[in-house]
Amino acid sequence: MTVELICVGTELLLGNIVNTNAAYLAEKCAGLGLSCYFQTVVGDNGERLGMVLETALGRSDIVILSGGLGPTEDDLTKEVTAGVCKKSLVMHEPSREAIRCYFEKRGIEPTDNNWKQAMLPEGCIVLENHNGTAPGVIMETEGKRVILLPGPPGELCAMFEESVAPYLAGLTSRVICSQTVKICGVGESRAETIVRDLIDSQTNPTIATYAKTGEVHIRVTAGADDKKAAMKLIKPMVKELKHRFGNDIYTTEEDVTLEKAVVDLLQANDLTVTCAESCTGGLLSARLINVPGASEVYKAGVVTYSNKAKRRFLNVKKPTLQKHGAVSEATAKEMAKGAALLTKADVAVAVTGIAGPDGGTEEKPVGLVYIACSVKGETTVKRYVFSGNRGKVRDSAVSAALSLTRSCVLEYFSRVTFGKK
Amino acid sequence: MTVELICVGTELLLGNIVNTNAAYLAEKCAGLGLSCYFQTVVGDNGERLGMVLETALGRSDIVILSGGLGPTEDDLTKEVTAGVCKKSLVMHEPSREAIRCYFEKRGIEPTDNNWKQAMLPEGCIVLENHNGTAPGVIMETEGKRVILLPGPPGELCAMFEESVAPYLAGLTSRVICSQTVKICGVGESRAETIVRDLIDSQTNPTIATYAKTGEVHIRVTAGADDKKAAMKLIKPMVKELKHRFGNDIYTTEEDVTLEKAVVDLLQANDLTVTCAESCTGGLLSARLINVPGASEVYKAGVVTYSNKAKRRFLNVKKPTLQKHGAVSEATAKEMAKGAALLTKADVAVAVTGIAGPDGGTEEKPVGLVYIACSVKGETTVKRYVFSGNRGKVRDSAVSAALSLTRSCVLEYFSRVTFGKK
Repeated sequence: MTVELICVGTELLLGNIVNTNAAYLAEKCAGLGLSCYFQTVVGDNGERLGMVLETALGRSDIVILSGGLGPTEDDLTKEVTAGVCKKSLVMHEPSREAIRCYFEKRGIEPTDNNWKQAMLPEGCIVLENHNGTAPGVIMETEGKRVILLPGPPGELCAMFEESVAPYLAGLTSRVICSQTVKICGVGESRAETIVRDLIDSQTNPTIATYAKTGEVHIRVTAGADDKKAAMKLIKPMVKELKHRFGNDIYTTEEDVTLEKAVVDLLQANDLTVTCAESCTGGLLSARLINVPGASEVYKAGVVTYSNKAKRRFLNVKKPTLQKHGAVSEATAKEMAKGAALLTKADVAVAVTGIAGPDGGTEEKPVGLVYIACSVKGETTVKRYVFSGNRGKVRDSAVSAALSLTRSCVLEYFSRVTFGKK
Repeated sequence: MTVELICVGTELLLGNIVNTNAAYLAEKCAGLGLSCYFQTVVGDNGERLGMVLETALGRSDIVILSGGLGPTEDDLTKEVTAGVCKKSLVMHEPSREAIRCYFEKRGIEPTDNNWKQAMLPEGCIVLENHNGTAPGVIMETEGKRVILLPGPPGELCAMFEESVAPYLAGLTSRVICSQTVKICGVGESRAETIVRDLIDSQTNPTIATYAKTGEVHIRVTAGADDKKAAMKLIKPMVKELKHRFGNDIYTTEEDVTLEKAVVDLLQANDLTVTCAESCTGGLLSARLINVPGASEVYKAGVVTYSNKAKRRFLNVKKPTLQKHGAVSEATAKEMAKGAALLTKADVAVAVTGIAGPDGGTEEKPVGLVYIACSVKGETTVKRYVFSGNRGKVRDSAVSAALSLTRSCVLEYFSRVTFGKK
């Protein structure tokens, strides 16, 4: 079954916003086993929208339109679609009531325009909107399906998850399931080499690799008659990947990020963490603290951008800075040790590097970063050279610091467990 | 003159990447005064690409295609386009030589496939690629123009700036120029109210408002016979906006961000700055330090996430925390004062709030943030309630902290200058 996307909005045509809705819908539809061959963007213009919709209905089974469901005169996706599908718009009382409640709750008087959002194509399936006033719509017409979704990403994604995904899944007897294996500390090309034979021989399940900053995600996807059968096909492949990547896999759960995996690992082992940052300037702390509940493990950290601050707060020795420089293995090590002492944290992570655009030399190029991780006094330092601009180098350094923290903690406990200490 | 965009790539259809090329090209074309009514995404498939291209040529004057110029068999944008435009592909010797040099420089042996990239449509304008091996192409055919650009954003943007923008600008005798007035600390709806009459009566120049996190940008655009005449039309409108928004305008320069404006303001006044962060967890420091040259003004900062850390590093009083709580005006104030004392910085900014999803109460809801800014001992505290999820609350708090820092520094110096101190 084929699906086609039409995103409606002048702000997309003017390049004022990036079309994240298209990427979201495309990824979700692919995950449901639907083939998407075309995506179109068109403005809030009746004639051109009608033209694009007719073309789409001529070549695809399902057409999903997003945007243009608002209350203003500019918003005409619903009107145009109903016209093309030869349906009239009629007042949908539950939607009218929902709009009334929405405004009442906020103490605002709705304008006449707002009621327009409750006018829906006759005989359509109405999709409730829990995050705004525009209901979604599914119309079935001459063997084709047209789905209308609101443009704001928060409303669109929630409505897709809740109503559209189950509807689309019900159209085929086949179920598509997937699981993502998330790997850190392994480069994309090395990861691809490790799974090359699996990719070459794949049928069902299929596997695909996705490069993220400092991470590689491998998605395993299988189609079957029901969810249980699909998961049964996925399981041995995930097991094989676990065998091949071992501890470099930080999760196989969809909603676990690398920073959450690190926070969870620390919490499970009853450890606190601190960060001493130079070139990343607080980004590493910020990413850890973005995990809800991070307060259990993260108490305090420092941004020591100047040499003086490194000396004063972290007790980095003057001769160390003079002999090796601020961006060096020795400085990173002393920063981590100093941060542990300063904050009394069990784990201390220090980052020092040259983010650019200036400050690089032949010997110490832009992108050179040293990261030290100290776990209960045992310190590991690693050297990295990242590419890209200032922002990219900093992001890469933060991801690498999270990976290193994870591997140092795991290693510490494996040694403790095996009685080597 | 109308332009239409076709982005070619299966990774776009699968939603693996977001189509930033389309937003970039759309914004640039709008800036050149071209009208864009359609954008299409299609995969690396000859038949479908040909179909989409013929439709585009039937309704637009200029068609820009991106992607599919690579060396592999999958890449067939050039082949399909040449076919539709009835041109043959011939070896372009300078491009062949450029490819040879590119590989030689990197010490890699080119494969047979690579030479395919030097096969170009006869009679086309060749656009050099200084960031990769795929040359760009401009074809003129039956009064229409077809422009082929490589898919990687770094290559596409550089080639557009260097070769395509001047070419497109040369097609019309008219020049379109714009200037952006960037405003902080004023909400979007208030900003719109302030300029409503200007928007309603606009002809040339036109003005448009864009909401950013904690900022509003107003773009003034004018068309004229030459750049000088266009800028002459823009100037009085920018002057009017300066009159209406006064000090809330932090820049009228394209490449100046709010954090850069703050760093520049501090540097111009020979001030150093520190941050003491709780809920933002290092993000504020990170944004300041992302400005190249921030080391002149930012030396050190702290992330004090726990109450204990607030007491120990910033000397926040135990009774203050007990009586008012960590998220309060009193705590924010003591944090800023303590940070100034700890780091000896001239300006200290403190942020404490409830980013959610948990931790909110009736009295102190999720999104409540207090920000304090101390300039040479004079401290201002402001209360904010931000909406959105944890990430959004934190981003909004950082933007508000930058705005507050800017206004406190400006106010301090205006008072000093006027002799009120």
